[in-house]
Amino acid sequence: MENTIVFGLSSSKNLAEHICEELGMELGKSKVNHFADGEVLVELGESVRGKHVYFIQSTNCPVNDNLMEILIGIDACKRASAASINCIIPYFGYARQDRKAKPRQPISAKLVASLLERAGATRVVTVDLHANQIQGFFDIPADDITSMGLIGDYFNHKEGLGEVVVVSPDHGGTVRARNLADILGAPVAIIDKRRPKPNVAVAMNLLGDVKDKTAILIDDMVDTAGTLVSGVEMLKKQGAKEVYAACSHGVLSGPAVERLKNSGLKEFVCTDTIDQTENQKNLPNLVVLSIAPLIAALIQAVETNSSLSVALSHAFE
Amino acid sequence: MENTIVFGLSSSKNLAEHICEELGMELGKSKVNHFADGEVLVELGESVRGKHVYFIQSTNCPVNDNLMEILIGIDACKRASAASINCIIPYFGYARQDRKAKPRQPISAKLVASLLERAGATRVVTVDLHANQIQGFFDIPADDITSMGLIGDYFNHKEGLGEVVVVSPDHGGTVRARNLADILGAPVAIIDKRRPKPNVAVAMNLLGDVKDKTAILIDDMVDTAGTLVSGVEMLKKQGAKEVYAACSHGVLSGPAVERLKNSGLKEFVCTDTIDQTENQKNLPNLVVLSIAPLIAALIQAVETNSSLSVALSHAFE
Amino acid sequence: MENTIVFGLSSSKNLAEHICEELGMELGKSKVNHFADGEVLVELGESVRGKHVYFIQSTNCPVNDNLMEILIGIDACKRASAASINCIIPYFGYARQDRKAKPRQPISAKLVASLLERAGATRVVTVDLHANQIQGFFDIPADDITSMGLIGDYFNHKEGLGEVVVVSPDHGGTVRARNLADILGAPVAIIDKRRPKPNVAVAMNLLGDVKDKTAILIDDMVDTAGTLVSGVEMLKKQGAKEVYAACSHGVLSGPAVERLKNSGLKEFVCTDTIDQTENQKNLPNLVVLSIAPLIAALIQAVETNSSLSVALSHAFE
Amino acid sequence: MENTIVFGLSSSKNLAEHICEELGMELGKSKVNHFADGEVLVELGESVRGKHVYFIQSTNCPVNDNLMEILIGIDACKRASAASINCIIPYFGYARQDRKAKPRQPISAKLVASLLERAGATRVVTVDLHANQIQGFFDIPADDITSMGLIGDYFNHKEGLGEVVVVSPDHGGTVRARNLADILGAPVAIIDKRRPKPNVAVAMNLLGDVKDKTAILIDDMVDTAGTLVSGVEMLKKQGAKEVYAACSHGVLSGPAVERLKNSGLKEFVCTDTIDQTENQKNLPNLVVLSIAPLIAALIQAVETNSSLSVALSHAFE
Amino acid sequence: MENTIVFGLSSSKNLAEHICEELGMELGKSKVNHFADGEVLVELGESVRGKHVYFIQSTNCPVNDNLMEILIGIDACKRASAASINCIIPYFGYARQDRKAKPRQPISAKLVASLLERAGATRVVTVDLHANQIQGFFDIPADDITSMGLIGDYFNHKEGLGEVVVVSPDHGGTVRARNLADILGAPVAIIDKRRPKPNVAVAMNLLGDVKDKTAILIDDMVDTAGTLVSGVEMLKKQGAKEVYAACSHGVLSGPAVERLKNSGLKEFVCTDTIDQTENQKNLPNLVVLSIAPLIAALIQAVETNSSLSVALSHAFE
Amino acid sequence: MENTIVFGLSSSKNLAEHICEELGMELGKSKVNHFADGEVLVELGESVRGKHVYFIQSTNCPVNDNLMEILIGIDACKRASAASINCIIPYFGYARQDRKAKPRQPISAKLVASLLERAGATRVVTVDLHANQIQGFFDIPADDITSMGLIGDYFNHKEGLGEVVVVSPDHGGTVRARNLADILGAPVAIIDKRRPKPNVAVAMNLLGDVKDKTAILIDDMVDTAGTLVSGVEMLKKQGAKEVYAACSHGVLSGPAVERLKNSGLKEFVCTDTIDQTENQKNLPNLVVLSIAPLIAALIQAVETNSSLSVALSHAFE
Repeated sequence: MENTIVFGLSSSKNLAEHICEELGMELGKSKVNHFADGEVLVELGESVRGKHVYFIQSTNCPVNDNLMEILIGIDACKRASAASINCIIPYFGYARQDRKAKPRQPISAKLVASLLERAGATRVVTVDLHANQIQGFFDIPADDITSMGLIGDYFNHKEGLGEVVVVSPDHGGTVRARNLADILGAPVAIIDKRRPKPNVAVAMNLLGDVKDKTAILIDDMVDTAGTLVSGVEMLKKQGAKEVYAACSHGVLSGPAVERLKNSGLKEFVCTDTIDQTENQKNLPNLVVLSIAPLIAALIQAVETNSSLSVALSHAFE
Repeated sequence: MENTIVFGLSSSKNLAEHICEELGMELGKSKVNHFADGEVLVELGESVRGKHVYFIQSTNCPVNDNLMEILIGIDACKRASAASINCIIPYFGYARQDRKAKPRQPISAKLVASLLERAGATRVVTVDLHANQIQGFFDIPADDITSMGLIGDYFNHKEGLGEVVVVSPDHGGTVRARNLADILGAPVAIIDKRRPKPNVAVAMNLLGDVKDKTAILIDDMVDTAGTLVSGVEMLKKQGAKEVYAACSHGVLSGPAVERLKNSGLKEFVCTDTIDQTENQKNLPNLVVLSIAPLIAALIQAVETNSSLSVALSHAFE
Repeated sequence: MENTIVFGLSSSKNLAEHICEELGMELGKSKVNHFADGEVLVELGESVRGKHVYFIQSTNCPVNDNLMEILIGIDACKRASAASINCIIPYFGYARQDRKAKPRQPISAKLVASLLERAGATRVVTVDLHANQIQGFFDIPADDITSMGLIGDYFNHKEGLGEVVVVSPDHGGTVRARNLADILGAPVAIIDKRRPKPNVAVAMNLLGDVKDKTAILIDDMVDTAGTLVSGVEMLKKQGAKEVYAACSHGVLSGPAVERLKNSGLKEFVCTDTIDQTENQKNLPNLVVLSIAPLIAALIQAVETNSSLSVALSHAFE
Repeated sequence: MENTIVFGLSSSKNLAEHICEELGMELGKSKVNHFADGEVLVELGESVRGKHVYFIQSTNCPVNDNLMEILIGIDACKRASAASINCIIPYFGYARQDRKAKPRQPISAKLVASLLERAGATRVVTVDLHANQIQGFFDIPADDITSMGLIGDYFNHKEGLGEVVVVSPDHGGTVRARNLADILGAPVAIIDKRRPKPNVAVAMNLLGDVKDKTAILIDDMVDTAGTLVSGVEMLKKQGAKEVYAACSHGVLSGPAVERLKNSGLKEFVCTDTIDQTENQKNLPNLVVLSIAPLIAALIQAVETNSSLSVALSHAFE
Repeated sequence: MENTIVFGLSSSKNLAEHICEELGMELGKSKVNHFADGEVLVELGESVRGKHVYFIQSTNCPVNDNLMEILIGIDACKRASAASINCIIPYFGYARQDRKAKPRQPISAKLVASLLERAGATRVVTVDLHANQIQGFFDIPADDITSMGLIGDYFNHKEGLGEVVVVSPDHGGTVRARNLADILGAPVAIIDKRRPKPNVAVAMNLLGDVKDKTAILIDDMVDTAGTLVSGVEMLKKQGAKEVYAACSHGVLSGPAVERLKNSGLKEFVCTDTIDQTENQKNLPNLVVLSIAPLIAALIQAVETNSSLSVALSHAFE
Repeated sequence: MENTIVFGLSSSKNLAEHICEELGMELGKSKVNHFADGEVLVELGESVRGKHVYFIQSTNCPVNDNLMEILIGIDACKRASAASINCIIPYFGYARQDRKAKPRQPISAKLVASLLERAGATRVVTVDLHANQIQGFFDIPADDITSMGLIGDYFNHKEGLGEVVVVSPDHGGTVRARNLADILGAPVAIIDKRRPKPNVAVAMNLLGDVKDKTAILIDDMVDTAGTLVSGVEMLKKQGAKEVYAACSHGVLSGPAVERLKNSGLKEFVCTDTIDQTENQKNLPNLVVLSIAPLIAALIQAVETNSSLSVALSHAFE
């Protein structure tokens, strides 16, 4: 892998270092200047001529700055004759704007994919995309890694959970809930929300049974945590013994941390696709699982032209 | 609309005629030659120079022939200086191959989108795409019309249904079921399938309650009808009073018609995104709703630069 | 060549195996699923990451299915990070639609070239293209191999032919006839067809002399064999001692086999660009020459970065 | 047609003026500067914003200067917001480099097509392309006008020709000869050239009969006139009463004019796709037919969105 | 102009309103949502189908948010079938990153141009680009308006200036200074900076003479104002009677306002390419000239297909 | 570097040979045919399959022929499967047409960049581009080498120059003059031209002081030498002891050589980016510095994936 360089940009410096440790290599030297007028300049501290470059950069908040950073980094590498430009974007921002929900709406997730390709990216890797179909927004190879095995492992090794039920907080997440439930050998339940009429409050109904069970609410991301917290309340009312929540991406913007603190959740489990260093100081029951071994295994498989699926399945052995 | 021509290709001749009746215009003259060696030649019988061309062509079975027909038709129009080339593809084939479910899989739905754009399409219109995100596979304007209102109307005007429950046949369809349920003011239920271990039969479980109710199984398409038929059985066992099935796309390939005939379904409701002329001869309880008024309203809105959403909402008044 | 994989798709399985034998390597594992609704799924049975992939697939009848197969195969390889995707298309379907013969006609051969490039092909190899200019429809490297040497060799080694004359069945094929005649050291004759007035039968006239000679009718492809059979009749009337016919591509669709059986031809010689396994059972005087050594030599030259022209000229030594 | 501007660039000023006369409009104001260092600057003397621009420019000698002129003109129009940029290139240079005849050869005709598209051309019109397939080198609408009707008309109205035979000077031109012969109701003959062995002179043989007939040698272009002149000689030896030669494109480079003067040709007929003003001074038996009415009819059809084929068939009535 | 809509995005709402007043039309309805996680959603409040859309949006600080806003707006319009998407970007951020000054640097100005085109922009208009060559970064029509006439007018109409000299603050700005000097009929002077050795302070030298004259320092933009302020000091030392500064773009980031307040400048003149509403509260000697009439004249010329240069030259009459 | 081939095309044969000597390798075999009709055919005399090709070709006069040569060469290499196609264009013609100076002007420098990319170039290298921003006209890696160090070295090693001042012949060249002055540790002066009114002669004024000093006029290129010669006169009148002129590109078209001979210049120094073999016969005080070592160092750095900046800084040690 002597021809490989891994650069960590602003949002994912810690993760990038963790990945390089796993790979047993030095993090590539780079510096990102943020000028007084808000412009960004990415400076690569070593030659990339003929090298396989990997950028590690989630596009979480500040999403537009983080996105421009990687686009500018790609441009710099392209003009400096990198052999390939691989973008590891563990949290892929704008993923929820993936279709026209109303007339005259943009499809910003596709726009972002197009911008990355236009800048010169030659491969993209994401973790737990909001919708699998976003892979098809790319013409370049796009691999989506799932952290569901990581999360499943965590709960499978946890003692004293008793009878478990996996709960989807809405209709859009039922497939994900079923997948985790299969790993845990557990049943599922679904929170069924409906708005009877305009201007009438949403009614919540539970499909399935949580009574006296340990409920694990699973989602791909938790943003302001409003949905999650009302889900916890409802599950408690329905008699759940204890409620855990798990997700890949702990976006946790606005009032999220405060809400989670007061939510009565036993644990809030997420990964480090988004850096949680700050949140860990404020949220005692936050559990962060690292995807660094998965990303490192992927880079190794790509660079040695070996099978990706084999590599990923062995990442935790 | 004197600058507009509508052509109906092989799979959607009937629908195209129906649309032209709605629009009060003649169907454009065209001929598709299928040569002895399988090659296709699309011959346009009138000048398209400076015209806005609309092809009506579903890409159902024989999917590859139907797809090549429209691609060749697009090429002919492009080279003959059409002002715009609009592809109305009510049933968009290959839509289920919309993500890499396993390593080394193609994303054929994206491939098809790319081929249409490469040939020269300037707009695409579909009906009830398997996944909304497929809109984002296109860089040209892509509108997806839903027939859910049409289906909802049908059941809302049907008498004697009693208490209704809308059922999703799997986890992937729960959002669609919720949408129809909202139109009907009904609750939902979900058939929860799980495979406990490899080589063990799938276990089916019902989330929600159908007992003594009229169950409406809703899906976007019904292909070989295997899933549907086992769903009907299960609902009957769970005490459903009567079971209806509805979908946008009646693909009905292989053993589907035979299975449906023996399924105990009260009615099988679908639209004419796929031509059902033949199936109507063999399947007595088949109900076909026509999307022609919706497509006609869309064409009129596009050609007069008026609002699409307004046009569609008035299509049935 | 350890980094090379050869896949044989549906239309050219036999040829692909033959090529792999020549190369002394195993045929790559792949499976093509044809679903009940006509959709195709190409599944690659081994990793292609960083590999040089060769698809062997003629696009003869069913041309649209065979074309979609290779397009989908290309998409799968592109997304699985193949290093290069080489499409060996011995018989290139739609080649006769290579220009606008009438207003509003497509140029389907160019369309197909564009679709292959759009899907992600990085090289195309064909055999005896209907028109050499089709090479220019591609922006990627496109090599056209000729089987004329193979056919020339066959007749040069055949005993007892006596005085030979090479005959072009129409004006469009005279250059090809001249080429074969040069290899055989023979004169040429041309069947000159004209239609004196609309609705008057085509008049046939022979330019050159076949009397008491062995006539070899040469064409690039024989489809329904109508032209060929009337040519044979005419040559016999003009006193030809015996008539052979040769072509690269034995399309042989519709009534072709029946016609050839009753044509009075001494032999019908073609290559295996199109699989002739079935036709060989029905047509006793069918002679099939294999292009596998030529293709194998080409693959070897490409993979070892050696000169293609040298490799091809040695293919039969 | 008030939104239409026709510009004549350096090689086709006269033709452009002739076309504008036919259209009853003024030639657009433009100036081409050739600087001392060989660079070219195209200056458009009037606004093209929102206009349909037609450039008239053959790419004959100096081919590269003429080509760059039109490319630069296209760039200027694109940046000045022309509504469409139509390139009328009556003689399309580099057309003979339309395939790889030997390894490592360019396909310069395709290259030129790609450059025109890249610069921003939106339509191309040519006259009697060397190979029809070159139309397929373009993705934009490309129409090829034939002057064969013009040439046919000329000979049909000529008195005293007696019995006529149309002769192709080589195998590549037999289809063209057959077409002209059909217009004239005449038979064809073909000059059959072969090179028995390397380093042995080409042997010429005549297929068909010219004895005591008026022979009309037909080709698409005449460049150095070597082939033509040796053809004339041969036809005379074979007893032709008189020999005419006709072609679309009188390239007439190098020794051509001198050779034609001494060739014994009765007339040398060509069109003004290439400006013949200079040659007319030196070549007494040169007959120039103008394609201006054809081009004018085409422009009118395009701008009024009427049928091109109808327009062209009426151009001489 | 009934087919024209002007939208003002976040950074240029005031300018957009001013432009619409000049045009006598209503500003288009639009809303930009900034979500808690930093993502942006642009919602267009009226149909753009078949309309010519103009976005007014400078990409000043926060540059990345402002850039993503317009990119997302473009995507929304493209998918909603706008007839054209015109981007008026009075201040074009990242313009100073217009070349590789050092190895491995990006050319971010080109990247931004490519992103705008990729998103779907069909025209770009800028004001006083940092380098004229940036126009060539675009393949779509790109017009750059100069405010130099506006600034020249201002000083030409100002009384009591006495003898004037125009000063360039560095070598890169001498052409601009010469242009303004020509408008004012004044001589120029240039501040000549040199760094004798690494780690030695920059030495400033004045080429030309400012003694007892009114000096006008001219630049395209003023960012942190460090260079400007040291220039003022030097000019005063050299005996300038009074010093004015003028520029197109008052970026004024970081310490700029404070520095300008204490600089001893008589007036700081800039335009409203960047909104100066806030700065006007804090900087008493700030003079803001509006480019709205210029932009309005440009839009009118584009929409009526009339000459842009004529329109701009009349903008102030 | 066994996988590398260097081809010298018509304008730069000598330079290419010089470069190959520096690299210790043979010049690649190629032949450029110029046909009687002006068409060009580039024939590569050795296989380029899988090779890294370097074309050396300045696009000086005849600029269009030289440009088409390299475009055709690129096309040939692309179709012959070269691994990379590197275009070393020491003098990049059309560079002065790098922006719209007036309405309806082309940006020919960008057009040329686009044509090179469209043909298939994968890297471009230039020397002292007229404007650095032209690098951004390319999407492929584009490196611009400066010969300023070469020219600085020449004057630094020259004895007896006395006190030196570097002079820019106009406002556009002041940054370049400052750069050379920094290398020589000298002050700068600028010739300030202004046209007081239309139809009034240009007035020349000197900013800075040249009295009794050795003046070195520096420019990027000298074309017809008119500006240069009037600058020399003026400097002499201002009391310069002696005047030298230096530039990268000795275009020297039209009356340039004659003018320079009579100019009173002590020396005219340029590089061999443009072949000066002919000019050296006629211009006694012409000094030509070779850039071959710089280009050779660049090729070596690229092919061995080492740092370009390091390589270039060592080129003269």
